[in-house]
Amino acid sequence: MSEGKEVARFGPFAQAIANGVRKGNAIYLSGQVSIDAKGQIVGAGDFPGQVKQAYANVKEVLERFGASMSDIVDETWFVTDIDAVMGDLANIFGVRQEAFGGKPEVTQTLIQISALAMPELRIEIKCIAHV
Amino acid sequence: MSEGKEVARFGPFAQAIANGVRKGNAIYLSGQVSIDAKGQIVGAGDFPGQVKQAYANVKEVLERFGASMSDIVDETWFVTDIDAVMGDLANIFGVRQEAFGGKPEVTQTLIQISALAMPELRIEIKCIAHV
Amino acid sequence: MSEGKEVARFGPFAQAIANGVRKGNAIYLSGQVSIDAKGQIVGAGDFPGQVKQAYANVKEVLERFGASMSDIVDETWFVTDIDAVMGDLANIFGVRQEAFGGKPEVTQTLIQISALAMPELRIEIKCIAHV
Repeated sequence: MSEGKEVARFGPFAQAIANGVRKGNAIYLSGQVSIDAKGQIVGAGDFPGQVKQAYANVKEVLERFGASMSDIVDETWFVTDIDAVMGDLANIFGVRQEAFGGKPEVTQTLIQISALAMPELRIEIKCIAHV
Repeated sequence: MSEGKEVARFGPFAQAIANGVRKGNAIYLSGQVSIDAKGQIVGAGDFPGQVKQAYANVKEVLERFGASMSDIVDETWFVTDIDAVMGDLANIFGVRQEAFGGKPEVTQTLIQISALAMPELRIEIKCIAHV
Repeated sequence: MSEGKEVARFGPFAQAIANGVRKGNAIYLSGQVSIDAKGQIVGAGDFPGQVKQAYANVKEVLERFGASMSDIVDETWFVTDIDAVMGDLANIFGVRQEAFGGKPEVTQTLIQISALAMPELRIEIKCIAHV
């Protein structure tokens, strides 16, 4: 392994991918989706619920490095239905703000893609943090 | 806020997202689209015009950190019609080169996605800069 | 050019984009696809073959900076058919592990997009390395 690389690897996909990797001050996270610690999808038909669970997973990865949501600098939201975001923005960004525990001081890119790894998933959130 | 994080937040979407975040030498920018300072879409049916406006926005964010286009190291182009790029590459990359004020020394990922936040938008450009 | 920026620029798309850019300890790579040094598509109908060639290209870019696959910290897979990945995961991630020469200690985001730059391409891999 490359010198100085720290890896967090746990949960249902630990065999396939690292949940997070730190090198220097940068922490990269795998795209997080609405799947819990047992590999079960949470909130299949509930977009805000999926946002909440995805961020719960983000937070858990960050904690493995002693980092927190406020260390996130950049995020990309890959969603399957962008109108579901734009049409309910106050509510959904409220869920996001709650996940951050305050106004999120992060950059964002919001993209509608054509599919995620499982058909029930509606959002995958990719975060970069710097400590 | 995380120690040492600098945030640029202005314009029509300032309530929802940060335009740019700097931590250490890295500057992350939110995906930039062809929307002007008043929140109006520029060049609805004009792809090269949208590229130009998106980069104008990138430049403005960078300037808030005292940085410039030459500090960009990486960019991702999310476009709604990749054939419109590939079929007019010389022209479109000419607009890009003009935005950079010279040969862009940046890496690029070019992807066709299925939708952006507003139906008139044809490109969203996500940049990372290092100073 | 921004001070301290190192650029790798070679191969069939050298006029348009940099293959890799290093600034400080971070190395950004352009999205890599299954195209060889002569600009020919490799493995048009063969997804695992495309993964293999894309990583061969990643490796070549890294070598220009004296870096190796183990320095990769983050990757995004943009694929045209996510079911082709999920339905053949052991095989495809076997090809990936072989490309890394061991268990990849990297984060991953896996997204199905609607098109890549050429219709024969089925995957574009975007990597970030830190040395």
